[in-house]
Amino acid sequence: MQTTLINPAELFRLVYFFDILAAVVFAVSGALVASRKGMDVMGFMWLAVITGVGGGTVRDLILDVPVFWVQNPAHVSACLVTAVVMHFVAPLVESRYRTLLWFDAFGLALVSIAGTVKALDVGAPALVAIAMGAVTGTVGGMIRDTLGHVPSVLLRHEIYVTASVLGACTYAGLDAAGVERLPAMIGGFLTTFTVRGLAIRFGWSLPVFRASEKQERWTSERRDSEQG
Amino acid sequence: MQTTLINPAELFRLVYFFDILAAVVFAVSGALVASRKGMDVMGFMWLAVITGVGGGTVRDLILDVPVFWVQNPAHVSACLVTAVVMHFVAPLVESRYRTLLWFDAFGLALVSIAGTVKALDVGAPALVAIAMGAVTGTVGGMIRDTLGHVPSVLLRHEIYVTASVLGACTYAGLDAAGVERLPAMIGGFLTTFTVRGLAIRFGWSLPVFRASEKQERWTSERRDSEQG
Amino acid sequence: MQTTLINPAELFRLVYFFDILAAVVFAVSGALVASRKGMDVMGFMWLAVITGVGGGTVRDLILDVPVFWVQNPAHVSACLVTAVVMHFVAPLVESRYRTLLWFDAFGLALVSIAGTVKALDVGAPALVAIAMGAVTGTVGGMIRDTLGHVPSVLLRHEIYVTASVLGACTYAGLDAAGVERLPAMIGGFLTTFTVRGLAIRFGWSLPVFRASEKQERWTSERRDSEQG
Repeated sequence: MQTTLINPAELFRLVYFFDILAAVVFAVSGALVASRKGMDVMGFMWLAVITGVGGGTVRDLILDVPVFWVQNPAHVSACLVTAVVMHFVAPLVESRYRTLLWFDAFGLALVSIAGTVKALDVGAPALVAIAMGAVTGTVGGMIRDTLGHVPSVLLRHEIYVTASVLGACTYAGLDAAGVERLPAMIGGFLTTFTVRGLAIRFGWSLPVFRASEKQERWTSERRDSEQG
Repeated sequence: MQTTLINPAELFRLVYFFDILAAVVFAVSGALVASRKGMDVMGFMWLAVITGVGGGTVRDLILDVPVFWVQNPAHVSACLVTAVVMHFVAPLVESRYRTLLWFDAFGLALVSIAGTVKALDVGAPALVAIAMGAVTGTVGGMIRDTLGHVPSVLLRHEIYVTASVLGACTYAGLDAAGVERLPAMIGGFLTTFTVRGLAIRFGWSLPVFRASEKQERWTSERRDSEQG
Repeated sequence: MQTTLINPAELFRLVYFFDILAAVVFAVSGALVASRKGMDVMGFMWLAVITGVGGGTVRDLILDVPVFWVQNPAHVSACLVTAVVMHFVAPLVESRYRTLLWFDAFGLALVSIAGTVKALDVGAPALVAIAMGAVTGTVGGMIRDTLGHVPSVLLRHEIYVTASVLGACTYAGLDAAGVERLPAMIGGFLTTFTVRGLAIRFGWSLPVFRASEKQERWTSERRDSEQG
């Protein structure tokens, strides 16, 4: 008889709890954009929910599985409560922005791995599962930035999507190597959290390969504004 | 034997007619954005269709039911005809902007309730059904504003999403209380239409809880433009 | 016994090859936006994949068929390789922009017809099939432009969506008239490619019906920026 520290039912409850926590952390980032743009409480709610569950929703649609919050809207409820609270305390939270980045890193690590696990569970190939991890981690934030008229994470020179992808790769690799689920998840989580954490701590970014970048961007931007 | 004023088949035809009318009203708002941005007739068509059927499409995808216009594209046809007509008469319609706002309120009330009804019919919990009502009513407009480079309804301080949500709540509440479908729908419709109508008439908006809002928004905008 | 120049298996392989080629061509256009915006390699990958497979993904979701790259991610792999290569050679490719436009026209023609064929195959009405052709051809680019903060194709006065729709109409018409699949596909392909090609060559655009356009756009833009 094998002894495990955590039995499956407890593990499930733990993962479920963390999954909702991750949605709340993302909802906070959505509410902060709503706050900066001076939105009303309904705008807070909308951005909080879309940031909190948007990535997982797109993942579930692409994988053709039921959207995770339709039968049990616990995540949506948690995001709505977060939005209402944030409507009143946003300036306070804003002043703790750096702390928030760390919570966000935690949420990113969690949902990137959760998304990868779900995709592998429904039989998607490793490449698709890794993409689904990144989709779960980053699409909610992209919709948030689009609706809030804020430049998306793609335009900011930060290691964010990269951290998500590296963690997803780690989980997929460990899983393919036959490692059990819990240690593989912890490995993936730690990879994303560490990479993102180092990026936050040291301002890391990926190199941009372009000698003549500056001048061409300028031209492009002028061209854009003429067309708009 | 019970006597009803409207038999089910007639009610269905009535709801169907109003549903297409609502799509046309939304299509007009899409065409107006196309007109203001000086788009060609193809841009009119695209924005009219996406505004007219976009919200219901996202709702159907999330609920995992067949998208309502795929087997019977009556709504799409109606939006396309609207787009072509609007391509020629947009300036006239624009000058009646205030009248249009009332038609839009009518469309919003109609599809918010229709979306809630559909979600409850496929067994979604009340909270999800209310969210689907708001999605049906507002997502088409959000995609329209994103594609047309116009600030979305979330950024304008208007009671719009709120009206949609309140009507959806009313229907869900009446439905839970055992009220029959038609009176519950009328109750929900009147709630959304009245709230939105009062907002149009008196310029109502939700209060924004922020003392230091102005200054922080300014900082945020400067930061944004540096990053863009 | 009928003699055909191309047997079905060969035709399938040919169509498959061209389909991946079209995704690569679209991925190049996504990578170019990433390059102009000075994104890192992860941004290149994201925009390349979303532009390459985004339109087909939305089409498959709406038609309620499995998303084409989930079980066999060959298109995604091709887009990722394209992104990495482009990260290093983007300035070179940029300087061949006009050549690129012709490749893009080729890709547009190909996926517009492929999208229409797929929709008709699953029993969609002709109007929906034509719309799905246009969705396959243009939605990827629209998401690319939204994420890259570039005005979408709808705001540029070019014959692009129109070319896609005309080719889709041609295929649907030939198919309804009983023409065999291969010649109908070639007819649709040539229509889109020719119309788009003429637009590139001669700078064609659709007429915009508005006398007072300029002044009103200006007003609208001022209103927008005040709200933003």
